Amino acid sequence: MNFKSFPSLLTLSFSSLLLSACSTQGNVQTINETQPKNIIMVVADGMGPAYPTAFRYYHDDPSTPLVERTIFDQLLVGAASTYPASESGYISTSDASAAALASGVKKNNFFVTDSAASATALAAGVKTYNGAIGIDQQKQAQLTVLEWAKSLNKRTGIAVTSQIVHATPASYIAKNEKRGNYNAIADNYFDLKVDGKFKADVMLGGGTKYFIRDDRNLKDEFVAAGYQYINELSQLTTLDPNKPVLGLFADNALPSALDSKDKFRLKTLTQTAIKQLENDKGFFLLVEASQIDWGGHSNDIAYAMGEMNDLSATMVFLNNYVKQNPDTLVVLTADHNTGGFSIGAKGVYQWQPHFIQLLKKSPNKIAKLLAKNKISDQQISELLGFSISEEEILQFNVINLEQTLAASQQKLTVKQAENALVKRYYKAIKDIIDLRTNSGWTSGGHTGIDVPVYAVGQGKEQFYGFQDNIEIAEKLFKLMGKE
Amino acid sequence: MNFKSFPSLLTLSFSSLLLSACSTQGNVQTINETQPKNIIMVVADGMGPAYPTAFRYYHDDPSTPLVERTIFDQLLVGAASTYPASESGYISTSDASAAALASGVKKNNFFVTDSAASATALAAGVKTYNGAIGIDQQKQAQLTVLEWAKSLNKRTGIAVTSQIVHATPASYIAKNEKRGNYNAIADNYFDLKVDGKFKADVMLGGGTKYFIRDDRNLKDEFVAAGYQYINELSQLTTLDPNKPVLGLFADNALPSALDSKDKFRLKTLTQTAIKQLENDKGFFLLVEASQIDWGGHSNDIAYAMGEMNDLSATMVFLNNYVKQNPDTLVVLTADHNTGGFSIGAKGVYQWQPHFIQLLKKSPNKIAKLLAKNKISDQQISELLGFSISEEEILQFNVINLEQTLAASQQKLTVKQAENALVKRYYKAIKDIIDLRTNSGWTSGGHTGIDVPVYAVGQGKEQFYGFQDNIEIAEKLFKLMGKE
Repeated sequence: MNFKSFPSLLTLSFSSLLLSACSTQGNVQTINETQPKNIIMVVADGMGPAYPTAFRYYHDDPSTPLVERTIFDQLLVGAASTYPASESGYISTSDASAAALASGVKKNNFFVTDSAASATALAAGVKTYNGAIGIDQQKQAQLTVLEWAKSLNKRTGIAVTSQIVHATPASYIAKNEKRGNYNAIADNYFDLKVDGKFKADVMLGGGTKYFIRDDRNLKDEFVAAGYQYINELSQLTTLDPNKPVLGLFADNALPSALDSKDKFRLKTLTQTAIKQLENDKGFFLLVEASQIDWGGHSNDIAYAMGEMNDLSATMVFLNNYVKQNPDTLVVLTADHNTGGFSIGAKGVYQWQPHFIQLLKKSPNKIAKLLAKNKISDQQISELLGFSISEEEILQFNVINLEQTLAASQQKLTVKQAENALVKRYYKAIKDIIDLRTNSGWTSGGHTGIDVPVYAVGQGKEQFYGFQDNIEIAEKLFKLMGKE
Repeated sequence: MNFKSFPSLLTLSFSSLLLSACSTQGNVQTINETQPKNIIMVVADGMGPAYPTAFRYYHDDPSTPLVERTIFDQLLVGAASTYPASESGYISTSDASAAALASGVKKNNFFVTDSAASATALAAGVKTYNGAIGIDQQKQAQLTVLEWAKSLNKRTGIAVTSQIVHATPASYIAKNEKRGNYNAIADNYFDLKVDGKFKADVMLGGGTKYFIRDDRNLKDEFVAAGYQYINELSQLTTLDPNKPVLGLFADNALPSALDSKDKFRLKTLTQTAIKQLENDKGFFLLVEASQIDWGGHSNDIAYAMGEMNDLSATMVFLNNYVKQNPDTLVVLTADHNTGGFSIGAKGVYQWQPHFIQLLKKSPNKIAKLLAKNKISDQQISELLGFSISEEEILQFNVINLEQTLAASQQKLTVKQAENALVKRYYKAIKDIIDLRTNSGWTSGGHTGIDVPVYAVGQGKEQFYGFQDNIEIAEKLFKLMGKE
């Protein structure tokens, strides 16, 4: 399919979808007391089961004999598989896939999903190909739980720490062949409507540059359409609760939890989103802890634990919210695992998260400080919070000399040279942390292990035990009266 | 504590334990209809959550669009943490531990368990140190669920694919400071009694050499005490159902599933054990899929999947057994994860288990055949079931030449040289399988991720959600009327 011809076709198929949604709307009257008024879907991007386990030990009070339970332990109800659709007819370019196909294997997607396919599964209840946003294998637009909630006149929103057009939130709102088409996805946020209404009343996260562009200023269009626009977290307390809101707090993603002034910025966004969404008809909110995945991709356990800490605070808040609002359902799951992270590695039966606790800044920030300021050996240890060996200090010096040489040979600009140096320092710091904590990694990408499922509130028992990720959407549709 | 003085102290403390068990036996009359008559505890050694996920894809029918569910998917109810006790007072010799302790950290076991500590947790409901069999940190004997069942006059048994004195089954029956004391543990099986009765009526697995020794013939002692003794799987069908049985089918462990004539030997042992155990008062049976762990330690995914296949058949049988005997409870969990195995690795979003299906023999067996017979390049591909590259063939030839040289330089015996060659071929074959399947590993040891919990039958709802491994024992005690 020619991508340029896609939007019109899309509009067509999506309109018919909504027609079918409207025609079944009569079923809404079958809502009974087991159906939650409000649904909060939390996606922890990349949070395979090793992360909440690790967080328990990271979070543990070492002065007590037993390990304290986390909010994740309190809310665990099951697990979900995450594999994407098999792409019949599509021939992968990898040798291994080609060999497999030649030997008669029919599936060639091989069980490891990306965030777009899995978010589309969670949002719309369909298996699709890696990279697809809100559409199926045949590139047909799919109705999502957020859209269905809007068709029921519920308020809807998203609160994320990535750019708000990133794969996970995008899959609940936009329709696109390719997750990387951020501008087109941002356009969708304004252009695609449900029964003439904007799909999301609350949009909080990053991504200013996709909304304020040379070719189109979506921020202005939203403001003209009645939205409040804010671009500082401090403005979250100043919002009019009766007006929709677009809040974009960074050009792209928000800073990592470790590097943020507000280490609990996801919790802050979530609290505000709920305040804006509360109303008589109920609401649907998608929350995404977007950056656990990025900690995993970087094989940076300190980064990932910082994000888990924010997610934990968010879940504690949501658990309390459900206590006060028992007609609310909160479901938390991950879209996939990232990094093949393991608690313990290389035959050693230990994992020592206290070294992460000791860090004074994020590993990436420490690397940047080292590259910028050529600070002393002692300061390296001070930033890490623990002493490092002579060999490790020597290693930093070797990297510095090698990169100085490379910058000269390759005629790098000052900025290029600094970036290259940061990258190598960052790797060296992560290696030290992995060695101290005894963390293992198998990949810079995703892996296929089942992910945990957590739930609290009305309807939570629907999520007990094992389920496929498409069933999570199916259950949410059902809990909102769609048969 | 001096180990030689241990047995007498042990007997003392264990007697008092049983006294307390007897004194609370009055509580047994509080048994109500929610308590299962029979309990079958299944331990899948080393089966972290990646293994049942991987098994789903290994087990999948590639001709259908969706992935078929496994018995594990049907029975999943929750997850369990597995960390061992913190060992107060014990200073680890590792530098990292010493540094951590010096910096004020009080826990020094760091969250990764061995099979002895975790089996003792599952059996007796206490956290203990790595290596401990049925005793706590103070080296006091602990009452186990199997012993409690025996004190209720239930029949009891173990059916495992390791030697029956290996850490997991041993923790349910024996008391020892150190898991490696196999002879002392075997002695315990005969010498330690509950109310004057042998602890296990049925013992099926490997370990002949620990029962028929120069210094003591426990087999003869058991036979003299009324046990049937068998040493061939074919004899399992010839047993008298009214007599206890000791069945030892290998000097040490049973062959791996892939290398066994009976690829479902755990299922076979379990079926027979149940037949022998059924009686009016009910039974407690410990089943262990012992060798998933060994596949993990070897980073041999084909080995692990072979064991999962046997466990799967065993669980299908047990699930059907519960349908016919709804007063039975089956609980399955793992004691820990092994190998840091990941489904996908090195940034590639694929896992291709069909390459494992193609193998004609186990990787270890193929390595042995190659080392013994110097078979041709074509035969390597035939044994693997898929073609390998020129470079890979060259690699086998390089290994052969290097080992020939090493054998000559190091003056190895023919047997030593062959063993060294097998080891290197085995590694080369596993590397090829990891590359084809895209499997990742972080360790030759255990890792600390939470393990899945599965249950079916009467009382299964007790195991929903998250729990620590000691709670699994606590719940089983409670389900057998012990408060």
